[in-house]
Amino acid sequence: MATRKSFASDNHAGAHEAVLRMMARANAGDVASYGDDAWTERACASIQELFGASGGVFLVFNGTAANVLGISLLLRPYEAVILPEGAHLNVDECGAAERVLGSKLLAVPTPDGKLTPALIAGRLGDRGDVHRAQPRAVAISQVTERGTCYTLEELRALGVFCRSEGLRLYADGARLANAAAWLGCSLAEIAGFVDVLSFGGTKNGAVGAEAVVVMAEDLMPGVSFLRKQQMQLASKMRYLAAQFLGLLEDRLWLRNATHANLMARRLADGVRGVPGVELRQAVESNAVFAALEPAHIERLQSEWEFHVWDDATHEVRWMTAFDTTEADVDAFAAAVRMTAPNGSRASFT
Amino acid sequence: MATRKSFASDNHAGAHEAVLRMMARANAGDVASYGDDAWTERACASIQELFGASGGVFLVFNGTAANVLGISLLLRPYEAVILPEGAHLNVDECGAAERVLGSKLLAVPTPDGKLTPALIAGRLGDRGDVHRAQPRAVAISQVTERGTCYTLEELRALGVFCRSEGLRLYADGARLANAAAWLGCSLAEIAGFVDVLSFGGTKNGAVGAEAVVVMAEDLMPGVSFLRKQQMQLASKMRYLAAQFLGLLEDRLWLRNATHANLMARRLADGVRGVPGVELRQAVESNAVFAALEPAHIERLQSEWEFHVWDDATHEVRWMTAFDTTEADVDAFAAAVRMTAPNGSRASFT
Amino acid sequence: MATRKSFASDNHAGAHEAVLRMMARANAGDVASYGDDAWTERACASIQELFGASGGVFLVFNGTAANVLGISLLLRPYEAVILPEGAHLNVDECGAAERVLGSKLLAVPTPDGKLTPALIAGRLGDRGDVHRAQPRAVAISQVTERGTCYTLEELRALGVFCRSEGLRLYADGARLANAAAWLGCSLAEIAGFVDVLSFGGTKNGAVGAEAVVVMAEDLMPGVSFLRKQQMQLASKMRYLAAQFLGLLEDRLWLRNATHANLMARRLADGVRGVPGVELRQAVESNAVFAALEPAHIERLQSEWEFHVWDDATHEVRWMTAFDTTEADVDAFAAAVRMTAPNGSRASFT
Amino acid sequence: MATRKSFASDNHAGAHEAVLRMMARANAGDVASYGDDAWTERACASIQELFGASGGVFLVFNGTAANVLGISLLLRPYEAVILPEGAHLNVDECGAAERVLGSKLLAVPTPDGKLTPALIAGRLGDRGDVHRAQPRAVAISQVTERGTCYTLEELRALGVFCRSEGLRLYADGARLANAAAWLGCSLAEIAGFVDVLSFGGTKNGAVGAEAVVVMAEDLMPGVSFLRKQQMQLASKMRYLAAQFLGLLEDRLWLRNATHANLMARRLADGVRGVPGVELRQAVESNAVFAALEPAHIERLQSEWEFHVWDDATHEVRWMTAFDTTEADVDAFAAAVRMTAPNGSRASFT
Repeated sequence: MATRKSFASDNHAGAHEAVLRMMARANAGDVASYGDDAWTERACASIQELFGASGGVFLVFNGTAANVLGISLLLRPYEAVILPEGAHLNVDECGAAERVLGSKLLAVPTPDGKLTPALIAGRLGDRGDVHRAQPRAVAISQVTERGTCYTLEELRALGVFCRSEGLRLYADGARLANAAAWLGCSLAEIAGFVDVLSFGGTKNGAVGAEAVVVMAEDLMPGVSFLRKQQMQLASKMRYLAAQFLGLLEDRLWLRNATHANLMARRLADGVRGVPGVELRQAVESNAVFAALEPAHIERLQSEWEFHVWDDATHEVRWMTAFDTTEADVDAFAAAVRMTAPNGSRASFT
Repeated sequence: MATRKSFASDNHAGAHEAVLRMMARANAGDVASYGDDAWTERACASIQELFGASGGVFLVFNGTAANVLGISLLLRPYEAVILPEGAHLNVDECGAAERVLGSKLLAVPTPDGKLTPALIAGRLGDRGDVHRAQPRAVAISQVTERGTCYTLEELRALGVFCRSEGLRLYADGARLANAAAWLGCSLAEIAGFVDVLSFGGTKNGAVGAEAVVVMAEDLMPGVSFLRKQQMQLASKMRYLAAQFLGLLEDRLWLRNATHANLMARRLADGVRGVPGVELRQAVESNAVFAALEPAHIERLQSEWEFHVWDDATHEVRWMTAFDTTEADVDAFAAAVRMTAPNGSRASFT
Repeated sequence: MATRKSFASDNHAGAHEAVLRMMARANAGDVASYGDDAWTERACASIQELFGASGGVFLVFNGTAANVLGISLLLRPYEAVILPEGAHLNVDECGAAERVLGSKLLAVPTPDGKLTPALIAGRLGDRGDVHRAQPRAVAISQVTERGTCYTLEELRALGVFCRSEGLRLYADGARLANAAAWLGCSLAEIAGFVDVLSFGGTKNGAVGAEAVVVMAEDLMPGVSFLRKQQMQLASKMRYLAAQFLGLLEDRLWLRNATHANLMARRLADGVRGVPGVELRQAVESNAVFAALEPAHIERLQSEWEFHVWDDATHEVRWMTAFDTTEADVDAFAAAVRMTAPNGSRASFT
Repeated sequence: MATRKSFASDNHAGAHEAVLRMMARANAGDVASYGDDAWTERACASIQELFGASGGVFLVFNGTAANVLGISLLLRPYEAVILPEGAHLNVDECGAAERVLGSKLLAVPTPDGKLTPALIAGRLGDRGDVHRAQPRAVAISQVTERGTCYTLEELRALGVFCRSEGLRLYADGARLANAAAWLGCSLAEIAGFVDVLSFGGTKNGAVGAEAVVVMAEDLMPGVSFLRKQQMQLASKMRYLAAQFLGLLEDRLWLRNATHANLMARRLADGVRGVPGVELRQAVESNAVFAALEPAHIERLQSEWEFHVWDDATHEVRWMTAFDTTEADVDAFAAAVRMTAPNGSRASFT
């Protein structure tokens, strides 16, 4: 296992020092528990303002919990959520939604991780049929699982479509900062089209903290009870708040995301043209998806850490983070080149 | 709201500096996520050794989650858990167990927060009756909700009884350190009679971290999946681990608990004999339960923060923590005396 | 085991012949499935009219299902239902409510099976406390588990109290016909104070059919989906409908209930004054609760079938049904007398 | 709406007279409730013998419930079931499995409704990955949703594969009788390769009754509690039992199924060669799937009742039942011919 900078995931990175410093500052003295404190009030108010949220902000421990809490605001027991087949909520949360919400997930195949009004419309045929779970919410990810971003225009189209169809829209924003950095827009602009979304701190330089942002005021009743019931109410909430305050100060969240995105772009540029390496998705965040020959992957993994995304297509995912350096990227890109099959496809099995 | 040391809860305290220091140390460099790292390995191995656990150790974010995960190892869907009516799991977790586990809680009234074999036996009559949820596990708290501790003899009796009845035994150890400090025994001695228990870090000086300790090896299959499904798998697990490593170093956990217990005892001693103040439970941990006249409570709360435990009986709960000082206690005890009804019961309504 | 008429339960009785005849009539020809047929339309419209329900009527298979479906209309996931400790929903449905609804049941001890505004008020203290499941509905049984009936005045008081407290009121009407017969009032008069209730067919002479009556129109959205999701949508619904049509014709439901009640009263009268036999509840339906000496119970059970309700208090329950005859009652009462301890309490242990 | 024999569903048919007669016979006298009676004992023993089941037999009200109960025996909370995308359990039960079991369904696209070892293998890649619900069971339908039947050889292959992979196999047998009739084999031969299956009575001529057959003895603990908890325990169980006894007598179940299959085959033969009518699945049970021009469908539906299965492909489903007559089929086939587009494809839009 490499001691080098990993390209496996942005959660292999540590926390930003500003985050740890703010936690240390929050440590002084007695503070009321369960969020009834000034640190939490300040963090939540700041996030609410950033998003222009009419509802409120609720801090939780991790991304799975943020998704489940967010979706739980939108569904009655017999209602279902439409989402991309590869959504984290669908494939990477060990059935948490089914267990905790008891809701059906209506998965839609999509090559770039994005839903469209047409794709959603294709799952609405069951409405009113008593034998079918009733589609009531749509869940997207911004950034998507494939590293792509919805444009504001695409988001607007989804928002308009959902509203016209009586559907609620949720956005998994585990990497929302990276999307804002890519789009060059405010968080409020992204959030303006959705009902509820998460704002990820963890992958952006926190120790472990996510915010559920409730845009629509009518969804507020019950959120705090649902968070508690879903086992996400921190007793010493000040430390979750402090993490966000650390990220919010001087827009560290945006600087971190911008840097990580830049590193992904630098990596993509650095491997372009390497024989047998094919970029597979537009690089719109801090992820690079590429197809490599299996033997190439193997050689590269002997020295560097990253995930094979799809065995069948020999696709790998390279993630950068706020603390990835240009030197890290350049060394890794050099390794990609050096381990490449010299243009010879003969070794390909 | 007082800026003075609160006696409301041990989770009003901050984190111990050694905990924060260890988190800062853990911050260096890339580390594998989801617990596949050396920090987690070391913390879990240390805890497992402390408890003499044949199974394993699983870190989670908070006490509610630890209880739900722990209980989830013990029950099939139609099985129920017997617990004291006032158990945190029953009254203070917003129905998390019912929601996440779908299990019935069989609550038993008990004045001092403790279950006994006889009390448990009283709930076993429904066994085999197809209309009744089947008792399969027993959940106790050590320290109990009322600040009392099971003696090792009582634990042994419960363990023997449960085994003989085919029941599994779970212990909510949110304040397990305080119990060990009070009993003057090892964690392994306490844990030897149960199947699963939690080991609380948060109230003992952590930022927010609890461990689920699986004593019985046959309960291990599936725990890691259940933790993930229950939304308690930290991506940057190293920081949960570091908190425990901070507490484990030089037995800080025991020193913290011993000190908190001592402060509670000092407080109990300090208010003994104050007119109208009646201690209501044996002081065996870091909690003091006392009955006061309502007007006395009111006067005291104008300056000091603490919870009224039971309105009907005018009972209050005073909690100490690892960072409560002798001066804090003495000042508070003095305030209790000064606001006392001068021996005149006339004001009592 | 006796081949004599059982006094164990009103579900030991068969179905009334009029019910079977109506099922046979419904058997002719093709009929649309899942309730989209004329039989179902007629049965539901008739029941709706009988109850003066603004909402609608939904047929299900059994009483547990009726209770769970009814309660599911009233609660969000973090909300709880207040009910008598001995309620069928709480003790005799194997945790179905916890499993299917994921909701917490807040059980209140009550000697005669009845809730009062005061008893309910005692469980409302947790409102607004984020750690507590939020009381949102009240569930009563009419007839109660102890064979008693709420008077219309008591129902009105409960209804007014619930409305004033923002609570919804559900009534388990597995034996609602018996209550109407006892009170000498219409079903609409009973139902006027509740939001949802069940109307039991099974114990009243059906093969197996219960109706969920939704009084409040605002609760209607989703009921049909919830019934399907809760596995209670009959494909050949006409046969559930036909059972009710059989019971509704010439008010058979009321005649059956009146007769069963009369038989219980006759039995109570027949055993009054028998040495060692003490009636324990007012006989207001088709149940007689009595305390007997253990040896007396044993002698009686060697020939007759009935349930011991409470081992500790030697209390038994004797149920009559629509098909219990005066001769059955007289023979059983004679047996009670003949097996009585001759006035000698010496044998009582 | 036609008063003619419907080809919409086999649950539009009534009950066979022998079933009603047996229910009437079962009506005599007092009988113990909840299945503790001779009728139930006899029905369950007979079914168990027919299937050669080492476990036991449990009667429930409908097919959805049978599927959910059956699957509930096979999964722990974090485990998932692999099934065909079009499975009833997946699309036609309004999310009952997700709600009641909390389990993830792993849906596999399949053109003819059948799973194969290769298709199952394709979903096993997530094993051991803590972020993924763990595949633990496979659910097939025999007859499938598309009217096709697994051969015994195919079943054996599935059974062997599942066993070798540590997977449990469930079969939805809502139309199992039709499969046995088609394959010309015993129920035991079909059941020999699965762990649990349902045996449908309703579509075969019952009023409404399904049996869950537990083949594997190790799955027995808890089934009766799960049935109760899942709201499927009939109080007057004798009437569910009587329905099956009616179907079992003189192998009525097989005669009914054989006849229904024959009628489907007659229909398929009758429409073969009609211009614009294309049979879409092998006719191996009592269903005929055909693609028709939309205008043709419309003309035909103005007189006859049946379902459009897939709007996109203009595919319809024609079901026969035990009471479909040759005259019904011939009249319908004639209507198909008479409403056909005269070989002219011009009208096709």
